[in-house]
Amino acid sequence: MIVVGVDPGSVRTGYGIVKDEKGTFSLIDCGVIRLSSRQSLPERIKIIYDELGKLIAVNKPARLALETGYVNRNAQSALKLGQVRGAVVALAMNRKVELHEYAPREVKQVLTGRGGASKEQVAYMARYFLNIGNPIKPFDVSDALGIALCDLLCKTSPVSVGNGKTEPAMRRNNWSEFVKANPDLVI
Amino acid sequence: MIVVGVDPGSVRTGYGIVKDEKGTFSLIDCGVIRLSSRQSLPERIKIIYDELGKLIAVNKPARLALETGYVNRNAQSALKLGQVRGAVVALAMNRKVELHEYAPREVKQVLTGRGGASKEQVAYMARYFLNIGNPIKPFDVSDALGIALCDLLCKTSPVSVGNGKTEPAMRRNNWSEFVKANPDLVI
Repeated sequence: MIVVGVDPGSVRTGYGIVKDEKGTFSLIDCGVIRLSSRQSLPERIKIIYDELGKLIAVNKPARLALETGYVNRNAQSALKLGQVRGAVVALAMNRKVELHEYAPREVKQVLTGRGGASKEQVAYMARYFLNIGNPIKPFDVSDALGIALCDLLCKTSPVSVGNGKTEPAMRRNNWSEFVKANPDLVI
Repeated sequence: MIVVGVDPGSVRTGYGIVKDEKGTFSLIDCGVIRLSSRQSLPERIKIIYDELGKLIAVNKPARLALETGYVNRNAQSALKLGQVRGAVVALAMNRKVELHEYAPREVKQVLTGRGGASKEQVAYMARYFLNIGNPIKPFDVSDALGIALCDLLCKTSPVSVGNGKTEPAMRRNNWSEFVKANPDLVI
């Protein structure tokens, strides 16, 4: 399964394309779409839509993973970031690529085990999972790879639930699903 | 020339399609794309993209006019609204429809002569310009028609600049353009 992780931004949009073959992750492509501040926001949105569209056409990912935006910004920045995100969402929906969203803390938690981990730690773990020798730069790329890996890890990584039993998917949509999958945990 | 005005929103997105034949405006179509709060935001974005896409395919507008979002909202709302706007921007760019943006105050100013006009006044003026007998409801529709009309009026309406000379376009991208067009105003 191929997943493309996207770290959207109106100045730099990072992307990372990761392949999962039976639990072994490998890097297909990664990079940054750089936008100029001299371009209008609609022009930048068009470039991001087109560039990511090309990557999707070439690599045919099954899923696109996005970070849910930060909210500790001012409304004007959020509106700008939202527009870039909206274009990426529209692209995924138009190309029928499954869309998954993760909170920044969730990505850090899944990759490093700590929701408050630094960007350096996320980059380090992305290198570890993908077996990349050189440092991944800039953070837009390592963040995007982290998002893609988070998506794959949530799907595939077996996580112990304390009694030696493994839980196939780390993320559960609701508790009833969890209870159904683990009847012996109910007392 | 046909212009589609869009008032984007994650619950209701209003649209108004207006035709300008030598300064005479007529209504082609208007309505609201209603979204359910049970739908995820990506699902709603897909619906808005598809529905507006159909309207563009049928009516072939030369221009799409959008309001620049409000900023007096919290960052979470702005991020949400931004995503809907981003999808509309991506649609316009993908379909090669010229995109124009107006601040809410600008739309009110152009239609009613007062930047602080009420939504009722904008709706009244939209009825007047389009020669519509019945009230236009809801405000999402009248706002969208207002945006389309603002775009057409800014293009066509001559506005006096004080010395009896008329300025063909009300909006200038920059002062150098204005100065070039009005050399006699420079002292």
